[in-house]
Amino acid sequence: MKNILVGQSGGPTAVLNASLYGVIKGFIALKKSIPRIYGMVNGVEGFLNGQVVDLEREFSDEMSLEKLKTTPGAYLGSCRFKLPDELDDSTFSILFHKFEALDIRYFLYIGGNDSMDTVSKLSLYASKINSPVRIIGIPKTIDNDLILTDHTPGFGSAAKYVATTVREIGIDSSIYNTKSVTIVEIMGRHAGWLTAASVLSRQYPGDNPLLIYLPEATFDVEDFLTRIEQAFLQSKNLMVCISEGIRDKDGKFICEYDNHVGTDSFGHKMLAGSGKYLENLIRDRFRIKVRSVELNVTQRCSSTLQSLTDVNEAVWAGTFGVNKAVAGETGMMVALKRVSNEPYTLTYETVDVNKVCNREKTVPLSWIADNGTDLSEECIAYLKPLIQGNTVVPLEDGLPVYAYRKNMSE
Amino acid sequence: MKNILVGQSGGPTAVLNASLYGVIKGFIALKKSIPRIYGMVNGVEGFLNGQVVDLEREFSDEMSLEKLKTTPGAYLGSCRFKLPDELDDSTFSILFHKFEALDIRYFLYIGGNDSMDTVSKLSLYASKINSPVRIIGIPKTIDNDLILTDHTPGFGSAAKYVATTVREIGIDSSIYNTKSVTIVEIMGRHAGWLTAASVLSRQYPGDNPLLIYLPEATFDVEDFLTRIEQAFLQSKNLMVCISEGIRDKDGKFICEYDNHVGTDSFGHKMLAGSGKYLENLIRDRFRIKVRSVELNVTQRCSSTLQSLTDVNEAVWAGTFGVNKAVAGETGMMVALKRVSNEPYTLTYETVDVNKVCNREKTVPLSWIADNGTDLSEECIAYLKPLIQGNTVVPLEDGLPVYAYRKNMSE
Repeated sequence: MKNILVGQSGGPTAVLNASLYGVIKGFIALKKSIPRIYGMVNGVEGFLNGQVVDLEREFSDEMSLEKLKTTPGAYLGSCRFKLPDELDDSTFSILFHKFEALDIRYFLYIGGNDSMDTVSKLSLYASKINSPVRIIGIPKTIDNDLILTDHTPGFGSAAKYVATTVREIGIDSSIYNTKSVTIVEIMGRHAGWLTAASVLSRQYPGDNPLLIYLPEATFDVEDFLTRIEQAFLQSKNLMVCISEGIRDKDGKFICEYDNHVGTDSFGHKMLAGSGKYLENLIRDRFRIKVRSVELNVTQRCSSTLQSLTDVNEAVWAGTFGVNKAVAGETGMMVALKRVSNEPYTLTYETVDVNKVCNREKTVPLSWIADNGTDLSEECIAYLKPLIQGNTVVPLEDGLPVYAYRKNMSE
Repeated sequence: MKNILVGQSGGPTAVLNASLYGVIKGFIALKKSIPRIYGMVNGVEGFLNGQVVDLEREFSDEMSLEKLKTTPGAYLGSCRFKLPDELDDSTFSILFHKFEALDIRYFLYIGGNDSMDTVSKLSLYASKINSPVRIIGIPKTIDNDLILTDHTPGFGSAAKYVATTVREIGIDSSIYNTKSVTIVEIMGRHAGWLTAASVLSRQYPGDNPLLIYLPEATFDVEDFLTRIEQAFLQSKNLMVCISEGIRDKDGKFICEYDNHVGTDSFGHKMLAGSGKYLENLIRDRFRIKVRSVELNVTQRCSSTLQSLTDVNEAVWAGTFGVNKAVAGETGMMVALKRVSNEPYTLTYETVDVNKVCNREKTVPLSWIADNGTDLSEECIAYLKPLIQGNTVVPLEDGLPVYAYRKNMSE
C-alpha cells in the first residue's frame, strides 16, 4: 500500500485548488516511491459511492496543472458529510476497504472544521484497526476560525476581496452631494475575521468604513443610530460594515428582529438579513438615502483578487502535508505559525487534529476597538501580510481561464 | 474667454475618471492656447452652487493624474439634475454668467442619457443668446443604451466584470453533487446589454449560464420552469442569468409579481427582486436548493476588472471631445464607430446630441436566440472586443490605490 488519496470538503475558497496543486506537486517530487495519486470526487461522500479519479492522468499536461493553481472553487467537487460518531459503524470499514482496494497509504483531506472532524475519526479508526493508512488534514476556510494555526489558507484571498471591494463600494457611494448611508454585509456568522478585513479599506484617516461591527462584540442599536447621527456632522456619505452574524446583548441575531416581514406569494417566510434590517431602521429614523449591499459568493471564490501570499501558503500547506504523511505522521493537521510580522515570516508545523476539530477561533476582544465599532492596530498588523501580492491568472479572450472537469456534475 | 470646464454626471462607472483624465490630457496638449481647466464639483448642480476646482492645481503632480486613470467612480462628484425645459428659465442665464466669470469657452460634460439632455439644452441656449461657449458631451454609461454610438465607455468594464464574476459564481455553485439552481440578477432595467455579457462566461459548450434572459424578450414563467426541469436531465448545477428588468408578455416586470410579500417591522413595503421571485418559484416547484445572487454595485465600479480597451477608449473620448470643441463644434456628442471586429478597429466621430438624448438603444431582437433564452454568435462577436485587456492598477499594501478628494463630501 503506497498510493496517495486526496479529497476536498466543505465550502469553496479561492485557494482550495492551490492546496490540491500543492499535494500533486508533493506527489510528483516523491514519484519514485509513490506509484499513484487518486482524487476523491465530492469528498468522502463521493468516494463512498465509488467516485475517484487518477490525478496523474487528469493532469497529464503541465499547462492544465498550472491552471489549477489559480482556479477558485473545488476542482474535485466537495461535500458536506459528517462521519458517524461511533467507530464501529460500518461506514468506517467500508471506507478502509476502499482504501485497500486502491492501495492507499496516505490520505490528505483539505477542508475546514467539519473536515478535520473526518480526519480525526478516520485516524482514530486506523489506529483502532492497526491500519498503516496515514491521515493528514490541510486547513482551508475563508472564515479563519480554526484554532492552533495562525490563520487558514483561503482567508487571505477572501480578506483581500473584502478590503478591495469595500474600498470600491465606498467610492461608488460617495459621488453625490446628498446624505447617504451604505451598509455592507460580509460573511461570518460567528467569527468576524472577514468583516475585520474591511478595516484595511481606508485610504486615509477618517475614510470609510466609518463603523465596523463583528459578531464578537455586542451590537447596540441605539448606540449605532447615535453614532450615525454624530458622523453626519463630519461627512455626508457614511459606510458601515457588518458581519452577517452581529448580535445584541442578549445574544439575539440582529437579522432575527426582522422575522415578521411576512410571507412571499408562495407562503414562505421572508427573512431579511442584518444589513436589510439596519437599512430600514436608518431610513425610518433619519429619512435619508440608505442602501445595503450583501457581498455575494464571489467574496469566497474570486480568482481576480487572490492574495499571492495566500496562494503560496495554500500550495505549501498541501506539499507539507504530503511530506509529513510520508514521514509517518497521522491524525495531524498542517498548521501555519507566524514567526514575525515585519518581515512577515511563517513556518509550518503539524498539530493534533483532535484538538482542532469542533472548536472555533474568534477575533480576540482586545483587538476590537472603539466600543465594538473598529479594529485595533494590532489587528491591522495581523491582517496586512495576508493580503499581499497579486496572482497572474491565465487569460483567454479577456477572461480568466480555469481548470474544470466537464463531467463534474454527471 | 478661453478656458475649459469639465463635469461628471449620472451613475458611476469604472472609466468615468478615465474620460476626465482624457479631457485633462487634451488640455495639457493645448496648454499654450488655453490658460486653465476647471472641474465642476457634483456636476451642473454643484456648479450652480459655486463648487468648482482648478484641475491643474488639483493634479499638479503627475503621479496623482496617473492614479486618476484607473480610479473608479466620479472623482469630481456627480449629480442627478435635469435642466428646466424652458430655455427662458433663469437657471440658464445664471449658468452662462458663471461660465463668463470663469472665462469658460469649452464645456465638456461626461455622462449618460440625462447628461446629454443637459448638453443639448445648454447648446441650444448658447445658440439662442449667441454665446461662443462650445458644449460637447462625452458618453458614459454601463447600460450601453445610447444611440448613434457603437457602444459607450463604461460598458466594456462592466461587461468584463459580469462575464468574469458569473464564471466564478458558476464554479462556486457547482461543487456539490446535489441538484441546485443559481440565479444571478444583473443591472439593466430596460436594456439587457450587461446581462447579455454573461454569455461570455461559458468555457465550453453546455457550460453555465444555461439560460440568459433580457428585458427585450418576453419572459414566460412556465416555459422557464419547463426548461429548468429538462436541463436537470443533463446536468446537476444550473445557473440562470437575468436582467433586473425582465418582463412578461403583458409588459409587467417579473419583480412586480412579488409585491405582496408584506411589510417590514417599520411598515415599509418589502419588494423582492426578480431573482428572489424566481428563487422562491423554483424552490416551491422542485423542492431543490436554489440561491439568487444580486450582483452588487461593484459591477459598475470595479477597477480590478477594468477592460483595458474600455479605459483606452474612455481616455480618447475625453481628449477627442476637447479637440472637437476647440475646433469649433458644439451641441455634439463624441461617438464610437466600429470599423471592423477582426481586427477590432474603432474610429471616433461626433454626432448631434439632440438626436441622442432621451432615446434608448436596446439589444436587437435578432441577437436574442433560443426563444429568448440565449444570445447569438453575432452578439458574442460584438461583445468580445470590448472586454479585452487588463489594466495595471497601482497597488499599495496589497490594495488598489485610488485618486480621491478628501473634502469630497464636505
